[in-house]
Amino acid sequence: MKNVAIIGGTGYGAIELIRLLHAHKHLQVKKIISHSQFGERITSVYPHLTGFVEEPMEKLEIDNLIEEVDIIFFATPAGVAKDLIPKFADSTVQCIDLSGDLRLRSKEQYEQWYGKEAAPQEILNQAVYGLSEIYQEQVKEAKIISNPGCFPTSALLGLIPALEHNVITPNHIVIDGKTAVSGAGRTPTATTHFSETNENITPYKIGKHQHIPEIDQTLSEIAQETIHTTFTTHLIPMTRGLICTMYAELARDISTEEVIDQYQTYYVNHPFVRIKEIGIFPTTKDVYGSNFCDIGLHVDERTNQLIITSAIDNLVKGAAGQAIQNANLMNGWEETEGLDAIPIFP
Amino acid sequence: MKNVAIIGGTGYGAIELIRLLHAHKHLQVKKIISHSQFGERITSVYPHLTGFVEEPMEKLEIDNLIEEVDIIFFATPAGVAKDLIPKFADSTVQCIDLSGDLRLRSKEQYEQWYGKEAAPQEILNQAVYGLSEIYQEQVKEAKIISNPGCFPTSALLGLIPALEHNVITPNHIVIDGKTAVSGAGRTPTATTHFSETNENITPYKIGKHQHIPEIDQTLSEIAQETIHTTFTTHLIPMTRGLICTMYAELARDISTEEVIDQYQTYYVNHPFVRIKEIGIFPTTKDVYGSNFCDIGLHVDERTNQLIITSAIDNLVKGAAGQAIQNANLMNGWEETEGLDAIPIFP
Amino acid sequence: MKNVAIIGGTGYGAIELIRLLHAHKHLQVKKIISHSQFGERITSVYPHLTGFVEEPMEKLEIDNLIEEVDIIFFATPAGVAKDLIPKFADSTVQCIDLSGDLRLRSKEQYEQWYGKEAAPQEILNQAVYGLSEIYQEQVKEAKIISNPGCFPTSALLGLIPALEHNVITPNHIVIDGKTAVSGAGRTPTATTHFSETNENITPYKIGKHQHIPEIDQTLSEIAQETIHTTFTTHLIPMTRGLICTMYAELARDISTEEVIDQYQTYYVNHPFVRIKEIGIFPTTKDVYGSNFCDIGLHVDERTNQLIITSAIDNLVKGAAGQAIQNANLMNGWEETEGLDAIPIFP
Amino acid sequence: MKNVAIIGGTGYGAIELIRLLHAHKHLQVKKIISHSQFGERITSVYPHLTGFVEEPMEKLEIDNLIEEVDIIFFATPAGVAKDLIPKFADSTVQCIDLSGDLRLRSKEQYEQWYGKEAAPQEILNQAVYGLSEIYQEQVKEAKIISNPGCFPTSALLGLIPALEHNVITPNHIVIDGKTAVSGAGRTPTATTHFSETNENITPYKIGKHQHIPEIDQTLSEIAQETIHTTFTTHLIPMTRGLICTMYAELARDISTEEVIDQYQTYYVNHPFVRIKEIGIFPTTKDVYGSNFCDIGLHVDERTNQLIITSAIDNLVKGAAGQAIQNANLMNGWEETEGLDAIPIFP
Repeated sequence: MKNVAIIGGTGYGAIELIRLLHAHKHLQVKKIISHSQFGERITSVYPHLTGFVEEPMEKLEIDNLIEEVDIIFFATPAGVAKDLIPKFADSTVQCIDLSGDLRLRSKEQYEQWYGKEAAPQEILNQAVYGLSEIYQEQVKEAKIISNPGCFPTSALLGLIPALEHNVITPNHIVIDGKTAVSGAGRTPTATTHFSETNENITPYKIGKHQHIPEIDQTLSEIAQETIHTTFTTHLIPMTRGLICTMYAELARDISTEEVIDQYQTYYVNHPFVRIKEIGIFPTTKDVYGSNFCDIGLHVDERTNQLIITSAIDNLVKGAAGQAIQNANLMNGWEETEGLDAIPIFP
Repeated sequence: MKNVAIIGGTGYGAIELIRLLHAHKHLQVKKIISHSQFGERITSVYPHLTGFVEEPMEKLEIDNLIEEVDIIFFATPAGVAKDLIPKFADSTVQCIDLSGDLRLRSKEQYEQWYGKEAAPQEILNQAVYGLSEIYQEQVKEAKIISNPGCFPTSALLGLIPALEHNVITPNHIVIDGKTAVSGAGRTPTATTHFSETNENITPYKIGKHQHIPEIDQTLSEIAQETIHTTFTTHLIPMTRGLICTMYAELARDISTEEVIDQYQTYYVNHPFVRIKEIGIFPTTKDVYGSNFCDIGLHVDERTNQLIITSAIDNLVKGAAGQAIQNANLMNGWEETEGLDAIPIFP
Repeated sequence: MKNVAIIGGTGYGAIELIRLLHAHKHLQVKKIISHSQFGERITSVYPHLTGFVEEPMEKLEIDNLIEEVDIIFFATPAGVAKDLIPKFADSTVQCIDLSGDLRLRSKEQYEQWYGKEAAPQEILNQAVYGLSEIYQEQVKEAKIISNPGCFPTSALLGLIPALEHNVITPNHIVIDGKTAVSGAGRTPTATTHFSETNENITPYKIGKHQHIPEIDQTLSEIAQETIHTTFTTHLIPMTRGLICTMYAELARDISTEEVIDQYQTYYVNHPFVRIKEIGIFPTTKDVYGSNFCDIGLHVDERTNQLIITSAIDNLVKGAAGQAIQNANLMNGWEETEGLDAIPIFP
Repeated sequence: MKNVAIIGGTGYGAIELIRLLHAHKHLQVKKIISHSQFGERITSVYPHLTGFVEEPMEKLEIDNLIEEVDIIFFATPAGVAKDLIPKFADSTVQCIDLSGDLRLRSKEQYEQWYGKEAAPQEILNQAVYGLSEIYQEQVKEAKIISNPGCFPTSALLGLIPALEHNVITPNHIVIDGKTAVSGAGRTPTATTHFSETNENITPYKIGKHQHIPEIDQTLSEIAQETIHTTFTTHLIPMTRGLICTMYAELARDISTEEVIDQYQTYYVNHPFVRIKEIGIFPTTKDVYGSNFCDIGLHVDERTNQLIITSAIDNLVKGAAGQAIQNANLMNGWEETEGLDAIPIFP
């Protein structure tokens, strides 16, 4: 049994880690660190945890963590992990960062899109981008993981097989993202205020979402040329779930059946990606509470476009679930350990 | 005061007409015709109408209608209006069809996309496509109106100014549609079942939505060349509201400010279209219960794309509201008569 | 045309007043006063008002208001109106307070339940409790109106006819309140945070809701004996709508039909109260966006209880709508002026 | 490992059993029986099960079941299990009925409230009412379990400790039930139609809900006198979750702290009941997806009433979860086996 610390104890990332790790055979949550509420029990914030986590949350103490835990999950706001992770550099502690701090290899890009100073270059060099299905071999060797964003996870898993197989051209890729509100976290704001978010579709951060460079960076690496995607995001009146609908120009004549076949082959050893049959498109509820990414495909012959829909639970495959999947890979455990639950439906 | 009959009395289109016409100075609902429930009071189906409509619904009798009413709104399922409207051909009754029966000029297209026999050619020739802002002059002269679909209304109002001004190229236009559930009508089905629709995003009719040829037909007319758009639709867990997010390649260098300026000029005499300022994108709740179409614009310099979001209430500007707007134009009344309400918020 | 000022311009009460007054023949909104955002346009906060209200919000200036407006609606947080209304005492300006400041006749009660100093006694003496259907005659003569709370409006209209007619005994009255989230106002808080409010039922303020003494005060006056009701409130995942389900011991043998009959007679001259037929119970959507209060009744013979359900739109009959209804009564206009809209459905 | 059959394979009860049993150490689903869709894969109805259940659903064959399975869960509509269970009387197969067929001991009552012929008397005699916490000893010895209804589970667990300890009097008990829509099952109807259920509170079956006699029967047994409760139900716009708010007259002077203390003692050995601290009331989301019943308590001194709120997930503790809890008890396994998951939040 390895010991886990979660830093950022009062956010949604943290409680989803707690929920999922409860079923994990090799990992146990030893410490929950909260900057703002140490000393309090987490159940005073999250009564659903009553009976599961009764110890008070703790203050961050680096030495203490190095001594007592094996893995740290950073479920912290942007700008925190980049300053903390270097402090564990000389220890054996595995660090998995759920924030965006280590996702962009270019310090300039981070500073431009996040508006903060970037992580030290040596940490960026060390960090592996934990899109588990795509970078599985690198993850297995990693000590620091930069866990992907929710939109990039959905978009990249949906686009990469077609891009790698030259089914689509890298230009004109459009990604229309739709996300549940929990992606915005736990701090109440005008855009997460029930009365205005309910019964509403809200486009937001058009042209300036920090997931744009993250998606483009990985697609460019895969295609080995610079790719700029057009990416938009919409807030949908629901708590969990995220779908990207993607449009890309076909590079050659191909039928929907053939594309589906290619995707099924591509992901054959990846239990968390499920490719839908022809004419079936995933809904977000198909993956609710689970680590699955369900992908639907359609060749639009009228317009020579491949239409891809890719659905995940933004808090699981888009955050805590993929983080645990990466921990499994890093430690040589079954990839599905702790994540083998059936989605909750309806 | 002119007399109105509504055919299809128990659908959402009908009750939205009743709601809006209640505030109309020149129109009064004289007859509500229901094929399945004539003889019953509409309040047994829709208790919210108690005190407003107490007469029983009636059976369809053509002669009777010709004698007693001046305008008929057809809020009927696909395939009904095309058989009925010819029967009013020799009368002076104005016919406004909210179904899709008269929207496609090509009988072949109708038969292909709707799977039913098309309307007679002479009726198709006579019918004016009632996208009020664009075909205002033709609507004023019309006796038969084919009221546009909800997605086409949103998409076309959003795209046409850019297309007409050659701001965008006609290729690669992508329209990602997101709609509330009321667009599916009143008949309970698996896809409108609360437990499965709630907390869910459901892509549907990918590549085969009957609004595709309707959009392409109008865009092609405007551009005077054949245009095929890529169009998808997603069911969103809310009752009312629809937004299309659109992506089109810029044909020339232009700033967001200039595009906004062009749109504002284009719609300056059209009170129901509101162009948002730079950086602001409409939400569906901004137009809830009203006849507005709110449009947001963004030039994405990274990808040379124009991003357009266009929000309407699917039951008002996307159906009953635009039908009344057309009735106003046909009869020389104020375009806003009966439609001058503030959207309901929150 | 009389001129209106609304104080508290950025709350939901204010924008609902603006929406409803837009259709009013005798009232026009002349000034919108905002303490926190004067100088700004209200459309920067509420884009749905674009084209309707373009003047900037103003700072409060008493003299100015006395000169320029005839009626002031106070849509202010608790504790504000009680200090402002005295300043208009010597003017002819009619004051309608939508907050709870003037609702409790006892200064001690106010201080106990609201935790603030009460209004001056002379103002409390002057203020008429504007439950329009019940205190119609007093409202007609009033210059200061204390507009009822949302729960009290629903509960009192549902209970009073039975209480007055001695159909029920005054003991053991239970009122189970269920409200939409907009009742909590516009300030984002943990209890209005979408991710936690959605898909959730939240009991709140059990035993300490400030509407308890307001309900008891009026029932006690009607019954001419002290009544203590048991009252609870639950937050429901929706934006608008409120229902009270009420339980009271029958004082005598009576059938559901007879009770319904009594209620219909009681409210026969009150157009905003609609009594449902036997076996039919109102839903909140039946009154959405309207000033109606729909009431359903059932005699439970097994337990000798009268069960009453009373549904309103919390922002209309529970706030802005009833305030306008009171303004109509105070000025001798049609009671329904500006309020004669059909509920929005679905 | 014991083998399970689920009869009624396409309902929500069945798929929730499948979801929960997936984590069970001693039970595996061997057969899914569907009357209407045998031969089909369940994933064609429920795509979220892709990869978990791929065998086709089967036709009901009694002999075959007796041979191959150890436990049958009947997730069937009313009127089905009562005819099937007698056929397993001579076998060793354990039968757990999630429908209401065996819940009422009196055949007359069943026929009156369900409108169907009752089960044979010998089956009714044999069936144990599986309210696990209350009838634990009887459940351990049972071969046939009548699994309680969702409302009765919530109401009874909330009321029984106070009733048994004579904290409350048995008269005037009021139970105000509020439930998510999934309780209505999978068949689309007008009352589960998204557009009308969303943004709405719908009181239903007032005075005639079949859970009334079920609640009264158990309370009467506990109190050893005839009890008639007043019980109402309201449909709430959410998918999962149920809460009963209950009101009962205090039989003696007691503080909230003392009542909480009594409840904590009462349920000390029952891991699925969590009693909230003073001033805290459970929300349905606190138990989402889990087998917990969370109970909040408040002594209302003003009215001498005990107010109890009791929250469950209607599909888990209110159906499939409690059924598995009963199977655990019947077979001598850990009561929490397969049910030890943290509620999903947010």
